[in-house]
Amino acid sequence: MKKSILIQSGQSRDIHFALENGAGSDAVHSTPVYAYAVCSLQTDSQLEGVGLALTLGAGNKLVCDAIDYLVQHIEGKEINELMADFGTTYKKMADDPNLRWLGPHKGVVHLALASVVNACFDLWAKSRCQPLWQLLIELSPEELVNTMDFSYFEDILPREEAITLIKSQAAGRESRLGILKDGYPGYDTSIGWFNYTDEQVTRNIKKSIDQGFTALKLKVGSRNATRDIRRAELVRKAAGPDATIMLDANQQWNLPKAMATCRQLLAIDPFWIEEPTHPDDIQAHVSLAKEVSIPIALGEHVPNKIMFKNFIQSGCMSYNQVDAVRVGGVSEFLLISLLSRKYNVPIVPHVGDMGQIHQHLVLFNHISLGHPAILLEHIPHLKDYFKFPAQVMDGKYITPGEPGLSADFKEFVLEKKVLSQ
Amino acid sequence: MKKSILIQSGQSRDIHFALENGAGSDAVHSTPVYAYAVCSLQTDSQLEGVGLALTLGAGNKLVCDAIDYLVQHIEGKEINELMADFGTTYKKMADDPNLRWLGPHKGVVHLALASVVNACFDLWAKSRCQPLWQLLIELSPEELVNTMDFSYFEDILPREEAITLIKSQAAGRESRLGILKDGYPGYDTSIGWFNYTDEQVTRNIKKSIDQGFTALKLKVGSRNATRDIRRAELVRKAAGPDATIMLDANQQWNLPKAMATCRQLLAIDPFWIEEPTHPDDIQAHVSLAKEVSIPIALGEHVPNKIMFKNFIQSGCMSYNQVDAVRVGGVSEFLLISLLSRKYNVPIVPHVGDMGQIHQHLVLFNHISLGHPAILLEHIPHLKDYFKFPAQVMDGKYITPGEPGLSADFKEFVLEKKVLSQ
Repeated sequence: MKKSILIQSGQSRDIHFALENGAGSDAVHSTPVYAYAVCSLQTDSQLEGVGLALTLGAGNKLVCDAIDYLVQHIEGKEINELMADFGTTYKKMADDPNLRWLGPHKGVVHLALASVVNACFDLWAKSRCQPLWQLLIELSPEELVNTMDFSYFEDILPREEAITLIKSQAAGRESRLGILKDGYPGYDTSIGWFNYTDEQVTRNIKKSIDQGFTALKLKVGSRNATRDIRRAELVRKAAGPDATIMLDANQQWNLPKAMATCRQLLAIDPFWIEEPTHPDDIQAHVSLAKEVSIPIALGEHVPNKIMFKNFIQSGCMSYNQVDAVRVGGVSEFLLISLLSRKYNVPIVPHVGDMGQIHQHLVLFNHISLGHPAILLEHIPHLKDYFKFPAQVMDGKYITPGEPGLSADFKEFVLEKKVLSQ
Repeated sequence: MKKSILIQSGQSRDIHFALENGAGSDAVHSTPVYAYAVCSLQTDSQLEGVGLALTLGAGNKLVCDAIDYLVQHIEGKEINELMADFGTTYKKMADDPNLRWLGPHKGVVHLALASVVNACFDLWAKSRCQPLWQLLIELSPEELVNTMDFSYFEDILPREEAITLIKSQAAGRESRLGILKDGYPGYDTSIGWFNYTDEQVTRNIKKSIDQGFTALKLKVGSRNATRDIRRAELVRKAAGPDATIMLDANQQWNLPKAMATCRQLLAIDPFWIEEPTHPDDIQAHVSLAKEVSIPIALGEHVPNKIMFKNFIQSGCMSYNQVDAVRVGGVSEFLLISLLSRKYNVPIVPHVGDMGQIHQHLVLFNHISLGHPAILLEHIPHLKDYFKFPAQVMDGKYITPGEPGLSADFKEFVLEKKVLSQ
């Protein structure tokens, strides 16, 4: 049922979460602070739209300031009217002449756009009293593409082709609905943060497998390749020959080093190497993919649909890790998912949102677009702060039932600025 | 002579310049406001280091806030010690863990880095009482590369190869010093802003040619290709068959439209088409270059050395328009100039600084790196505000003599926030 709701005003909130004992550490960030640039939409009803963008630390304030500027574009709009042609508003915000020079379509202003866009989708789903996944799978192909901006996709995925692509997936849809009951398989990122000792990693693997996970990720990207190789062998040994093991270098290698280290890491039969080098260096990824037969996962730092278009066209991307709190929110995530489907590149999102929003999006991707239900990253460190934290049981995400996209925080979180575990 | 100077503190300044009567307008920005995020370094001497980054409008404040954060990295440093190994400090700033997630190496945080880096080079040159071009051409190859960060260039231009490249250009250097006396040729961007009427454009062309310019730029990128073609023909007719005419679409076309319109624009024999489509879309530029025999100029919105590396490797870039107030300042500009020299792609900078800093950099590029002295963009709209405005006579830049990189503003500019022409 559609309910008319007016967006009266929007504000940012700058929330920081201190992590402890090495959690969240990678080859680039030794002592990370997870921070959310939250967009909160006040309405003429009880409902609040809540969107997120993730950053790590003090720079979060810049994204909040950009949110406070961007919300002007949606204040005073009725949510159903807004979302009926959201692609147009999206383009206006993405090309705002006061901010466009600061990108275009990347960095602080695009992260702010993500948060605002996500708040709109949250409010839209709440206004219908539906979880986001349900809203998305019930929209018609035309209603779906109306939420997207196809600018610069005319040569690769024009609007009409996108509609045809969605329609073509109707066939197997019924059988794919089973995922709602079965649960979407998760993988555990938190066994092997960069600063964890070998002993911690071994303990975490046992715990993780006991909890039902069969896929685990280890942070690599040391200056010293010996450490990476030793730890990768340790994880393979502790997790057993059947476990799915991902390795994540967090952009730390240059191309020669990526080639040399990846060749050695092949011995542990990794499922993928993630972010082996700089996220803008498409040609380096192409060279690595040609030289070493290791699947490459990337996307966590790819800023927008144009860069994804180039990565997908280049053929180097085995797994697409687009993140709806990095690109321009749910709208751009959906468009990138469509393009990725056309080229048969599976989506395995990076979860800057700790999986809260992405648990909805992967259900849509599987059910409506026919993407394979491979894996969704699981990071539990912030679960005590979300009102409806993602639930994982036996290594699978339980389908969320609450209205919206599950980004609401508990009340006490909003009263503080920095929270510790 | 080296003089010891301590950087005591750094602050940003947020300065806006209102433009009037269509000046500065393009296919994306109908009523631009030029804004500078200025980095000002206070020292224990009378000297002040001044750096710039350009933005257009309200978002400038975000860059200023990022400058105020980044200057922590250089406060308390002695300028000669800092610049002796500036590549290391550059990398620390570019990878600051509190800001890196907001890029990496692009958008607000990278524009802020540009301003800070430029202020360091300004202070360095002032401390030696030399204009920047002179400082740069007198540095040894080793001193030069020490100002740069070669991360992710190991596969394409390692440090040692860069030194060899600079040394290899010593041969013709003496004869190239003549440019200092002759003046560096300029081209006139201001004849054909997007909102200028046909009559204004015709008048401007006459005035420009009378002033000695032989190269002129017209803004295209209309929704309606007919307008672009009519105006391009008008410029060719008014400027004559020998004039060099550049066309600038400011990213406004998608690939099919770029192909169709560029084919038609070939009739006026353009020197280049500038920014024909989205600046992140390397593959679209490659396709356009293959399909239409029109030279492509781009770089004004290419954020960093990694993206330049990919554009240069792809072979689609005929002219490299790297801008030292877009990429990470003079340091990254020099590194990109080196790579561009290796691949024989001429540098014709976009002048977000109105040519103030770039008049120094093109002299260095020509004299020390052997880049051809093709053309330097000239935009006069802010000349009343700079302390030492770039001087152009008979269509040529007169070699600047004042110490530093010529980014100082007149006193009255610093007292206001918004200035009108």
